[in-house]
Amino acid sequence: MDPMRIVEAQAEQTASKILMLVMDGLGDLPRYGDGLTPLAAAHKPNLDRLARDGCCGRFDPVGPGITPGSGPGHLGLFGYDPSEYEIGRGVLSAVGIDFALQPGDVAARFNFCTVDAEGKVSDRRAGRIPTEENRRLVARLREIPPPKGVEVFVETEAEHRGALIVRGARLGHRLADTDPQRTGVPPLPVKALDAASRPTAAIVAAFVKAADKILRGEPRANGVLLRGFDSLPKIPSLTERFRLRPVCVATYPMYRGLARLVGMEMPPPPPALGEFPAAVRAAREGHDFLFVHVKYTDKAGEDGDFDRKCAVVEEVDALLPEILGDGFDVVIVSADHSTPVALKAHSWHPVPGLIWAPGRVFRDGVTAFSESECVGGGFGRMPLRFLLAEALAAAGKVAKFGA
Amino acid sequence: MDPMRIVEAQAEQTASKILMLVMDGLGDLPRYGDGLTPLAAAHKPNLDRLARDGCCGRFDPVGPGITPGSGPGHLGLFGYDPSEYEIGRGVLSAVGIDFALQPGDVAARFNFCTVDAEGKVSDRRAGRIPTEENRRLVARLREIPPPKGVEVFVETEAEHRGALIVRGARLGHRLADTDPQRTGVPPLPVKALDAASRPTAAIVAAFVKAADKILRGEPRANGVLLRGFDSLPKIPSLTERFRLRPVCVATYPMYRGLARLVGMEMPPPPPALGEFPAAVRAAREGHDFLFVHVKYTDKAGEDGDFDRKCAVVEEVDALLPEILGDGFDVVIVSADHSTPVALKAHSWHPVPGLIWAPGRVFRDGVTAFSESECVGGGFGRMPLRFLLAEALAAAGKVAKFGA
Repeated sequence: MDPMRIVEAQAEQTASKILMLVMDGLGDLPRYGDGLTPLAAAHKPNLDRLARDGCCGRFDPVGPGITPGSGPGHLGLFGYDPSEYEIGRGVLSAVGIDFALQPGDVAARFNFCTVDAEGKVSDRRAGRIPTEENRRLVARLREIPPPKGVEVFVETEAEHRGALIVRGARLGHRLADTDPQRTGVPPLPVKALDAASRPTAAIVAAFVKAADKILRGEPRANGVLLRGFDSLPKIPSLTERFRLRPVCVATYPMYRGLARLVGMEMPPPPPALGEFPAAVRAAREGHDFLFVHVKYTDKAGEDGDFDRKCAVVEEVDALLPEILGDGFDVVIVSADHSTPVALKAHSWHPVPGLIWAPGRVFRDGVTAFSESECVGGGFGRMPLRFLLAEALAAAGKVAKFGA
Repeated sequence: MDPMRIVEAQAEQTASKILMLVMDGLGDLPRYGDGLTPLAAAHKPNLDRLARDGCCGRFDPVGPGITPGSGPGHLGLFGYDPSEYEIGRGVLSAVGIDFALQPGDVAARFNFCTVDAEGKVSDRRAGRIPTEENRRLVARLREIPPPKGVEVFVETEAEHRGALIVRGARLGHRLADTDPQRTGVPPLPVKALDAASRPTAAIVAAFVKAADKILRGEPRANGVLLRGFDSLPKIPSLTERFRLRPVCVATYPMYRGLARLVGMEMPPPPPALGEFPAAVRAAREGHDFLFVHVKYTDKAGEDGDFDRKCAVVEEVDALLPEILGDGFDVVIVSADHSTPVALKAHSWHPVPGLIWAPGRVFRDGVTAFSESECVGGGFGRMPLRFLLAEALAAAGKVAKFGA
């Protein structure tokens, strides 16, 4: 049996407070030459102190060799086995823009795209139109009349991105993407992947046809590409599972959406890194599990920018004393996945992680927070969901099992 | 699939002999200052030699973050997944005093307690009355006539502790504790937690009422508190699973009880640590798996006594050459759980473990037996049940799997 079932059964609510600081895509690979990763190269005395006084290790978000998307990576951080819950891109988009998705709704992510005179996609992102332009076009698409008994919601995300949500009785969500993932070919037709989804496919096909008509003549965004059709999965909340009162401090919609899926409360997002200390201070009241998400490490990794990834770590480190204050009994620092600068993409490599909890974790002799130091850390290498188990135990939130 | 299923399927009986030395609660945390644990600080040349010539690692009795009771901890040591078998305190108490518990019997642990004039518990342990006093009172309680068709057994454990066993047709064991776990309140009423247990609850309630009447007027032990109602779980024996002929060398009732649950033979207990070498020598004949249990490390941990925990390790180490003789092919040294002196309680931290088996285990470069050295050990960090798998393999008792 998965030991997390025991952790659930033994979970107790206590006054102790846990902060989980997630630096998105933090994990990296040693570069040629000096063998340093951005995390190892960064000057980060505060993170190093947490590592020295705490316990370190490496954690597999899903499993060895598996590159996680943001959904599975965060499920692992939140103590879930990501292989048990699949969350489609459409659902992530919808919950990430504060859309009140209901069970049974079918949601898809859409891109505005540019289509040439022959009907072939020439730009899958319509030149990354400004968000305001997106809003104008979405307002026009909202005029498309829905079929009887069905509601269709068209929502702006940002730039060329948006979400399409279909609401009605007995909808199926097994629809193929219409995004061909490359240019020079037409968008794919709307297609049901099972019988139960055929009526939904017809609804979506009619919407796409009407949208094409409305967008005809637009200079750049004259088409839509849909992907990631899905419905809300049934995920037990962190409160149901571990009796936590969790709250999210994150700027980016997708991570807020993931946090909402596991039942976190959602105060207004801090607009920039400098606002994080105040946001954490405010979120502390009435909550015992604070999820704090920093996106910029991942962005630097995706851009292959070693120095910028370092700089983000250093910026977070400088804010750390103010973020932590003396308000937490247990501090977790880790990542949802690795995004090595050499690969410019998510990767399958385990993420570094630490738990600081004075007198409650095994001080393992690690003296700095880096991937290489974590190899010899006291946690060893474990599935990422066990990081939360260790933190809950360190916080005194897991009762003894058995006589 | 749990790899232990394969180990079971491939298990072979051979002449090789395994000794498993368990130091209860051995695992600990590095103290501030010198960063030593009691195990690291102890002078223990013999254990260090086993570590140096063997292979070390760290082992999770149940799983990361989970604090095991003695039952789950020992199940892990014996190669079982503790999450599959729950053993109530009552069953442990009964089997631990050599009571021949039968399937369907309902057993509870009881404490003699002191109740004040208002019926409130003033001492949950009745001033820890001497065992002889316990025996005198138990003799009186045995005079309570049982209901028709039912047998009731009242058994002395030690000091204020005892076991109550109810035997009859179709009994249920889902009864709530009557021990309120604190003083200043009356004992809780006997209560069935499911419909099937209601007749049993009535039997126990009648017993408690009669006991209260008999004990009225006793100066200290004038009441009983019951907890941990349970029936024998169905656990396949070590012989059924791994074709072992196991035997137990342990002094304390609970650990003898646990060993009996997995089918170990049970020669008379050695009364003190000094008698262990002779007891091991005697138990060697006719057996190929010797479970040797030392309690005193755990006691020192529970008392927060660093130096005494060291001293127990040193005492065991001094006896080790005599205990081992040249009679074993494989030696395991480990623990059922950690009991850090700083926490004075069982904890969730993985336990250190070693296997010595010349030429059969990976010599990992570890030079001393300690929690910190084990971080870099050849076994890494694993569920505790896999320690037995490694030992069985080192003893040549696991046949090749597959062609």
